Amino acid sequence: MQATELQTKFEKIRANKWFEIFVVSVIVASALLVGAKTYELPAGFGSVTLLMDWFISAFFLTEITIRFLGEKRKRHFFKSFWNVFDTLIVVVSLIPAENTDLALIARLVRVFRVLRMISIIPELRILLVSLVKALPQLGYVMLLMFIIFYIYAAIGSTLFEAINPELWGDITISLLTLFRVMTFEDWTDVMYETMAVYPLSWMYYLTFIFFTAFAFLNMVIGIVVNVMEQENEKARREADDTSQEPSLGDIMAKLNELESRLKTPPSDRQNGA
Amino acid sequence: MQATELQTKFEKIRANKWFEIFVVSVIVASALLVGAKTYELPAGFGSVTLLMDWFISAFFLTEITIRFLGEKRKRHFFKSFWNVFDTLIVVVSLIPAENTDLALIARLVRVFRVLRMISIIPELRILLVSLVKALPQLGYVMLLMFIIFYIYAAIGSTLFEAINPELWGDITISLLTLFRVMTFEDWTDVMYETMAVYPLSWMYYLTFIFFTAFAFLNMVIGIVVNVMEQENEKARREADDTSQEPSLGDIMAKLNELESRLKTPPSDRQNGA
Amino acid sequence: MQATELQTKFEKIRANKWFEIFVVSVIVASALLVGAKTYELPAGFGSVTLLMDWFISAFFLTEITIRFLGEKRKRHFFKSFWNVFDTLIVVVSLIPAENTDLALIARLVRVFRVLRMISIIPELRILLVSLVKALPQLGYVMLLMFIIFYIYAAIGSTLFEAINPELWGDITISLLTLFRVMTFEDWTDVMYETMAVYPLSWMYYLTFIFFTAFAFLNMVIGIVVNVMEQENEKARREADDTSQEPSLGDIMAKLNELESRLKTPPSDRQNGA
Amino acid sequence: MQATELQTKFEKIRANKWFEIFVVSVIVASALLVGAKTYELPAGFGSVTLLMDWFISAFFLTEITIRFLGEKRKRHFFKSFWNVFDTLIVVVSLIPAENTDLALIARLVRVFRVLRMISIIPELRILLVSLVKALPQLGYVMLLMFIIFYIYAAIGSTLFEAINPELWGDITISLLTLFRVMTFEDWTDVMYETMAVYPLSWMYYLTFIFFTAFAFLNMVIGIVVNVMEQENEKARREADDTSQEPSLGDIMAKLNELESRLKTPPSDRQNGA
Repeated sequence: MQATELQTKFEKIRANKWFEIFVVSVIVASALLVGAKTYELPAGFGSVTLLMDWFISAFFLTEITIRFLGEKRKRHFFKSFWNVFDTLIVVVSLIPAENTDLALIARLVRVFRVLRMISIIPELRILLVSLVKALPQLGYVMLLMFIIFYIYAAIGSTLFEAINPELWGDITISLLTLFRVMTFEDWTDVMYETMAVYPLSWMYYLTFIFFTAFAFLNMVIGIVVNVMEQENEKARREADDTSQEPSLGDIMAKLNELESRLKTPPSDRQNGA
Repeated sequence: MQATELQTKFEKIRANKWFEIFVVSVIVASALLVGAKTYELPAGFGSVTLLMDWFISAFFLTEITIRFLGEKRKRHFFKSFWNVFDTLIVVVSLIPAENTDLALIARLVRVFRVLRMISIIPELRILLVSLVKALPQLGYVMLLMFIIFYIYAAIGSTLFEAINPELWGDITISLLTLFRVMTFEDWTDVMYETMAVYPLSWMYYLTFIFFTAFAFLNMVIGIVVNVMEQENEKARREADDTSQEPSLGDIMAKLNELESRLKTPPSDRQNGA
Repeated sequence: MQATELQTKFEKIRANKWFEIFVVSVIVASALLVGAKTYELPAGFGSVTLLMDWFISAFFLTEITIRFLGEKRKRHFFKSFWNVFDTLIVVVSLIPAENTDLALIARLVRVFRVLRMISIIPELRILLVSLVKALPQLGYVMLLMFIIFYIYAAIGSTLFEAINPELWGDITISLLTLFRVMTFEDWTDVMYETMAVYPLSWMYYLTFIFFTAFAFLNMVIGIVVNVMEQENEKARREADDTSQEPSLGDIMAKLNELESRLKTPPSDRQNGA
Repeated sequence: MQATELQTKFEKIRANKWFEIFVVSVIVASALLVGAKTYELPAGFGSVTLLMDWFISAFFLTEITIRFLGEKRKRHFFKSFWNVFDTLIVVVSLIPAENTDLALIARLVRVFRVLRMISIIPELRILLVSLVKALPQLGYVMLLMFIIFYIYAAIGSTLFEAINPELWGDITISLLTLFRVMTFEDWTDVMYETMAVYPLSWMYYLTFIFFTAFAFLNMVIGIVVNVMEQENEKARREADDTSQEPSLGDIMAKLNELESRLKTPPSDRQNGA
């Protein structure tokens, strides 16, 4: 009985509005702390940040524990992606590594505590889920784009390697160079260099820009059309639900009723009424 | 009675078409004056521009006063955002600071008199209001984007500070550098520099570009879908209003009427007619 | 009578398919000639190009004359924008200036003969007309954008003139610099330069980029929504025209007919039938 | 009879799921091999890659042969674009040229074997077909854009050739320079150079950017509207097919039936029933 009492208590804390606000504040504080550490702080602040770091870690651990204990069915807790996500971030950032070789990694891991902002604000969670959902639909366009990139990178590193190995040394570097060309970042410098040897190499760049721009455009339009369709579908369903108007089917049923009434002779109708 | 007479007079001036045109002309003149001052003018023009400046200030003050006196209920005047906006700009630009340390600020304040163009042309006002209205809907996407920026800036200033403190010195500078990367402005220079130390740092830039581009795309689509929905909603409402066609509900009502008529025996019908 | 005969003859030539194809060929030839002249041609070609130039000029003059004479009502000829456009291009390119100071201008004028391609291909004409029609709808967004540019240019040339007069010397140069910033072309170089003096000047650039990008986005969406609406309107009208289905109004009319029939007693109905 | 038996056997292989997966694996392997060759491999690997190359070539040849023999009507085989495409790639990559002057070309041709990925994955094939289908609709916009480019290139190479022959030497180079300006790649460097001679030449660049950006925008919107229309059309057709609701025509037919029933006198109706 005591356990159930405690659980109800934790459940209440979890659902408490002020608890939520406090958790968000601590997350914001942890983000600011991460930011503050990138500045050169006066000597005295070293111990302050260390203290705050430990407080935040302890608080997050307590919070997760409360959430876990507040869950009625313990198994369900780890079925939620966001609970696993939160637990992982909290547990990993607990690893003590301040004075070891791993200090840098420990610092970086703490940066990801800012991501807890997404798990705690429902609107951001919905947004991220919808972004992730849009990815697989784009899978084939991205595969096509990668094939284009791969072929051009293979050609590029075959033809241009001798000209500038830093840009076309092997297929990985060539892929990076082509991504640069796609973002139009100093792409003419890359082109003029190869045009000095192969005067027609502008065709290589122009066709590449044309293909990737076209594929990218197709991708964007794919997303837009998709989002629109979902919106339209939603709007249609809502319209159907709220509409007070009879459907064409209702009108047809009424006409069939009238017809059967006309089929019965007037005398019968009089009796039936 | 005299006050009411004066008010009616001012109200007339305010609504006068030629008065409007003259106000717009003075605003344009004040804009041109601001522009002209950025050129090196011959010595003689100094006093001319000073004179024009004072004339424009005086005119704007008079105009605002007329508007205020022309308003029936004085309280309502300051309830309009655009009236407060106009008054603020006019009053602030009156501060005499030509020969003091504040000369530069005084000059800059006068630039904002060009903004009165927006308050005086209704179409621009509507446009700006619709732009401002679109902002809160994008709030969560922008928060998500800021979280992405913040995490990457924290990682960047932790890992790359030693490489180039001018780009990655602290989290503020890193945010600016990341904004630069997002605009594709010489982003490969930034990348090649860090790749010399961390050969895998291209993953940092590519994932960042991917995430922000994707979030930005989502934002744009969000606006488009929103605008489209509003347009569709408007179109639907207009179609409903202008349509001469009976609704399905009207037809159902007519059928019910016919049915009740059929229920009554023919003899009664004859009598009823 | 002879004049009418000639006119009918010219009218026939004008409508002839092969004549059209020949005119397009001459326009293409004139375009290629313009292009060829930009190369360093061997000495012998000088007289050839001169000859071709005169042939093209003569041909265009003849063609326009035929078109004019083939027009039944001479006044109508100059009411068409494209006829005036063609005539102007042909007449201006006749001005003999090969060996005078105007040689360069004469050469440039001949470039515009390529524009006749637009006037001769109906699809290009439609496309251009639709582009021009879209412009006024964007008028206010462009005015708003110009106001933003103007205010930022005034501020820029006031604050940054001393730093780099080549970029911020007066309001015209500042407008050009801001356009450069909007295209993200080496905008960080411009920013870092002013940040050395005013460390907070990044706010100036970031707000400018935000405002113009947002206004530009709005403009693009404006066009898209507009085009979509026109398309939908067209589709709706076409659907109305081709639909074989009766309208709701037709059904209501039929119901009213039935009702009036029910009001007449069965005996009358029998007689009426 | 034996031939038919063999054909049925080949047809079975062709339709086999595991065969498909194996073919995709070999294509991926050939892509990886192409990539691997761009790295500097240790001496021993030379013969390995040569061996793999021959295995892949042999496998592809066998595969195409099986496909061909598995086809019932041999003529139909070459009517499919993708079969011709596959056969061409396989046959061309068989040309032995490893130790001749054509070694480079032979290596490049093998790169295109990666393209077989598109012919083997149906979703990629559909995607590519839809991309190619979108092209002709854009034909006129691209022609208009080319005319704009051509006129500006002719003007550019006439006016600016003396300033920088590397950028404006002849019309081909000028076209390339203008494409660079359109991608905003260091376009101000190009502009500042000509502005030193012709101070008003910024008008040339700004109008060019405006025209091409506008035309490009129009092109993108054209594709979007087109895709949307197709989607709407598809959605409408699907709605028509799945709808269980009677149409307005059905209701009208029922009303006409009722009317004819009312026209017949009640006595007849009784008899008819």
